[in-house]
Amino acid sequence: MDFEVVLRKRAMIRSFQPVPVEDEKIGRILRNAWRAPSAGHLQPQDFIIVKDKDVKRRLSEAGFDQHFIEEAPVVIVVCSDTRRNVRRYRERAIKFYSITDGAFSSMIILLTVVNEGLGACLVGAFDDDEVSKVLGLPKEVKPIGIIPIGYPAEKPEKLTRIRLEKRLHYDRW
Amino acid sequence: MDFEVVLRKRAMIRSFQPVPVEDEKIGRILRNAWRAPSAGHLQPQDFIIVKDKDVKRRLSEAGFDQHFIEEAPVVIVVCSDTRRNVRRYRERAIKFYSITDGAFSSMIILLTVVNEGLGACLVGAFDDDEVSKVLGLPKEVKPIGIIPIGYPAEKPEKLTRIRLEKRLHYDRW
Repeated sequence: MDFEVVLRKRAMIRSFQPVPVEDEKIGRILRNAWRAPSAGHLQPQDFIIVKDKDVKRRLSEAGFDQHFIEEAPVVIVVCSDTRRNVRRYRERAIKFYSITDGAFSSMIILLTVVNEGLGACLVGAFDDDEVSKVLGLPKEVKPIGIIPIGYPAEKPEKLTRIRLEKRLHYDRW
Repeated sequence: MDFEVVLRKRAMIRSFQPVPVEDEKIGRILRNAWRAPSAGHLQPQDFIIVKDKDVKRRLSEAGFDQHFIEEAPVVIVVCSDTRRNVRRYRERAIKFYSITDGAFSSMIILLTVVNEGLGACLVGAFDDDEVSKVLGLPKEVKPIGIIPIGYPAEKPEKLTRIRLEKRLHYDRW
């Protein structure tokens, strides 16, 4: 699909058809997510592919009962393994780069999903400790985004935005 | 350009031809960045378009003397204005969503740059307070990414990556 078309079609989808997503599509989504940039090319991003019903249910609960998480046929949880970047970047690895790098992969997943004819939502509101417990994350691994993916069962909501001009500044704030 | 082609062509560019970037291209880059998602659709992202030589030079210094910043004809600094999201999300707005949301816009900028035949680099290593001073940011506004943009004067470095399979986990870590 043309890049600009993908960009324009991207929107949060929170309702999914009860049909599985083909493994080749999931594979292409992960391959693109893997190509995301990272600070110092230290590649902290890891991906947990969740299809197990019970794990999805517990992720929904850890996501403050956003039940569309468990309704998706597949959920990708993007994590950052700070063991890969903390030696070089110390505090900034944990408080900043692990978050930006995970967000880069998450953004690429959301776009690739559209290119594959699928829909997804990015869930950033979750109890970190609960997600870590559900997924058995080592303490150095931070969950960054929970991304339920499937064939859309809804038309995306039309969102209004703050006018672009109001968000632009020239040379200084 | 096809979405997958853009994805594959994207790479960090740190050397630029000394020619300006057309305003229409910058406009399309900003319009796409503006479409990035944000937590609760609170849209904290703001964009500072820097062409002034002196401001670019001072940004290079604030970026620990990464001089390719000042060599780029245009630099977009992605910021998050936490006044838009802190009331709803408090601590998590400042420590998490402001960073993810800024990173979403930054990732879209990097991809759109490729689609426009340009090159860019994402600089995340900078002294936050110095960048804020150079750009006159209000204290509630956090700089997230400094993105120098221009026509590439180098072929991107071929990067090796940790094998994808090593970064995948199924249902649990």
